[in-house]
Amino acid sequence: MTMRTYLQVLLERRPRGWPSEDDFRVVESTLPPIGDGQVLVRGLYLSLDPYMRGRMNDGPSYVEPVKLGAVMCGEVAGEVVESRHPKFAVGDKVAGDLGWQEYAISDGRGLRRLAPVSPLTAQLSVCGMPGITAYVGLLDLGRPEPGQTVVVSAAAGAVGSVVGQVAKLKGCRAVGIAGGPDKCRFVVEQLGFDACVDYKAGDLRAQLEAATPQGIDVYFDNVGGEILDTVLSRMNTFGRVPVCGLISQYNATEPYGVKNFRAILVKRLEVRGFIVFDHADRYAAARADLAQWLAEGKLRHHETVAEGLRAAPAAFLGMLRGANLGKQLVKLA
Amino acid sequence: MTMRTYLQVLLERRPRGWPSEDDFRVVESTLPPIGDGQVLVRGLYLSLDPYMRGRMNDGPSYVEPVKLGAVMCGEVAGEVVESRHPKFAVGDKVAGDLGWQEYAISDGRGLRRLAPVSPLTAQLSVCGMPGITAYVGLLDLGRPEPGQTVVVSAAAGAVGSVVGQVAKLKGCRAVGIAGGPDKCRFVVEQLGFDACVDYKAGDLRAQLEAATPQGIDVYFDNVGGEILDTVLSRMNTFGRVPVCGLISQYNATEPYGVKNFRAILVKRLEVRGFIVFDHADRYAAARADLAQWLAEGKLRHHETVAEGLRAAPAAFLGMLRGANLGKQLVKLA
Repeated sequence: MTMRTYLQVLLERRPRGWPSEDDFRVVESTLPPIGDGQVLVRGLYLSLDPYMRGRMNDGPSYVEPVKLGAVMCGEVAGEVVESRHPKFAVGDKVAGDLGWQEYAISDGRGLRRLAPVSPLTAQLSVCGMPGITAYVGLLDLGRPEPGQTVVVSAAAGAVGSVVGQVAKLKGCRAVGIAGGPDKCRFVVEQLGFDACVDYKAGDLRAQLEAATPQGIDVYFDNVGGEILDTVLSRMNTFGRVPVCGLISQYNATEPYGVKNFRAILVKRLEVRGFIVFDHADRYAAARADLAQWLAEGKLRHHETVAEGLRAAPAAFLGMLRGANLGKQLVKLA
Repeated sequence: MTMRTYLQVLLERRPRGWPSEDDFRVVESTLPPIGDGQVLVRGLYLSLDPYMRGRMNDGPSYVEPVKLGAVMCGEVAGEVVESRHPKFAVGDKVAGDLGWQEYAISDGRGLRRLAPVSPLTAQLSVCGMPGITAYVGLLDLGRPEPGQTVVVSAAAGAVGSVVGQVAKLKGCRAVGIAGGPDKCRFVVEQLGFDACVDYKAGDLRAQLEAATPQGIDVYFDNVGGEILDTVLSRMNTFGRVPVCGLISQYNATEPYGVKNFRAILVKRLEVRGFIVFDHADRYAAARADLAQWLAEGKLRHHETVAEGLRAAPAAFLGMLRGANLGKQLVKLA
C-alpha cells in the first residue's frame, strides 16, 4: 500500500461570538495503514450543520466539545476503499461521523451502509440526520393534526425544509420563517409550503398574523431568540413547541431574554427541547418513511454544495449567516 | 323570608402593575329571594389565590376577566341556608366559585357538596383547588421518580406547600424556594421539606447548588422571572418544568426576559404550562388521595386567615407580596 496524503480541518481555537476562518486550520496529513477490523473510507460529501458551532465551544453541552487541534466533527457520506472489517466491502457506500477530512479510518462503529437511494446527497439531507430530526421533532413532539398550522423557522435549511414538507403530507398548513425574499420564494415555490414569512423584512408579528389566520398549533423552533418570542404570542391553546436549535443564539455573547414566557402558562404550551440522538429507536421508521416519500416524489431535497475540503470553513461560516438554501454540503471528491 | 343585606367586594378599576385597595369597592347589597332550582349559600371561608390578579386585567388570558363593577371571583366554602334545589338541603356544606361576598345564590352548577373532612378550611387548601393543582402538576406533569429532586417555588404558599409534601410521600428530595427565614423555617420544620432556599437572601444560585447536590429533576414553577431563570441552569437532563404560575410577573409592567432558554434545548427539558381546570378528569383521584393523606396525618395544612370580608382586599394584596404562610383565607362568618 502506498502512503497517501490527505486534507483535514482541525479546530485551531475556540471562537467567542462569531467564528472566523482563523478558528480552523487545514493540514495535510499522511494516512497510516489500516489495522484488523478497520476500514478506510474516502469521503464524498461532508455535511455542515449548525450544531457544529456548539461543539467549537468549551463548557457543558449535550455532547463533548471538539478538542483543540482535533479534527472537526461532522457526518460524511463516502465509499469504502480498503477493508479489513467483516461487515464492509470495498465499494460500499457508507455514512458516519467521520469528521472534516478527505479520508477516515473507522472500526465500523457508528458507520452505516447506505440504502440505495439516489442521489447520495439525499443521504445527508432528507434521509440523513436533518430529515430524521425533522421527522421525529415534528411527528413525535409536535404531534400535528390534519388542519392544524405548523410553523418552522430556518425553513429553507436542511431541517426546516423537511419539517414543512412532512407537515403538508400530514394535512397541515405549513408556514415557514426564513431570511430574505429568495429563501421565502424557494420555500413556497420549490418546497410547497403554504406561506413563508421573511423575518428580515421587519414587522414579523404582522406578517405572521397574516400567514397564520388560525393561529399556530406547532412551532418547530430552530432559531430561538426574538423570533421564538414573537411566535409564542401567536400560539394556540395546547400548542407544542419542539425546540430543535437556537441558531440565533449560537454566536451571541449575551443570551436573548425570552419575554413571552407567560404564553407557556396562559396557553398551556408544551415546550420541549430535543436532540435527535436521544431518539435512535425512531431512526429506522423515519428513514423508511423519508426514503419512500423521496422515491414517490413527495419530498424534495435541495443542497448547496461547496467544492473541496479547503472550502469547508468558509461554507460553514456562510451557513451560520444563512447563505445556503437547503442542506449545506462540501464535495470532497 | 326577610330581606337580608350582605357585603360584596366589587372590582372597581383595573390596576396597572401592583393593585391597591382602591381597585376594589366593598358594597352592602340586598339579597333577592331565591327561585326554583336555586340555593342560598352563606359563605364561611373565602379562598384568596394569586390567579385572581390575572382576572383583574383586561385582555386575553385563559379565562374571562372579571367585569368592572362585578363581584370579584373566588372559591368559597359555605353552608346552604335556603334551598329550592333537589340536590341540596339546608345545612349542607358546599364549595364553589361563589365570589367575594357573604352570601351567594347558586343554581347548583359548579357547586359541590363537601366531603366530611375536618377542618372545613382544608377543603379550600390541601383538599381544594390548591391541593389538586399541586397533585396534578407534580404527579402528571412532573412525573417524579423516587430518589429524584423536586424543587418548588412559593414553597410556603397554598400550592407549593402541598407539592413538596407529596414529593416527599413519593420518595423524592423536596427543596423549597421561599422569601425570608421565617418561611424557610416553616417549610422545613412544619412541612418536612429537606431544604428551603431563601431567594431574598441573595446568591440564589449558590444556595440552590448547595441544596440540590444531585441537580434538579422537577421544577414546579409558581413564580417565573429570575428565579425560574436561575433554576433552569440547575436542571438535569430530561427534567420536567410544570409551569403553574408566574407570581413574580403578575404585577410587572415589563415582562422579565428568560435568558436560560438554551437549557431547554441542551438538557432536553419539558416545560409545560398547565391550569388545573383542564384536568377535571383527575379531580376525584386527587381529592381521594389528598383526603386520605390528610386523614392519615401525612399531609399538613396551614392557613393564614383574615377576619371578615372587609379585610379581603388588604389580605389579597398582602398575599401577592408574600405575607401569608400556607393558604390565605378570609373568614366570612
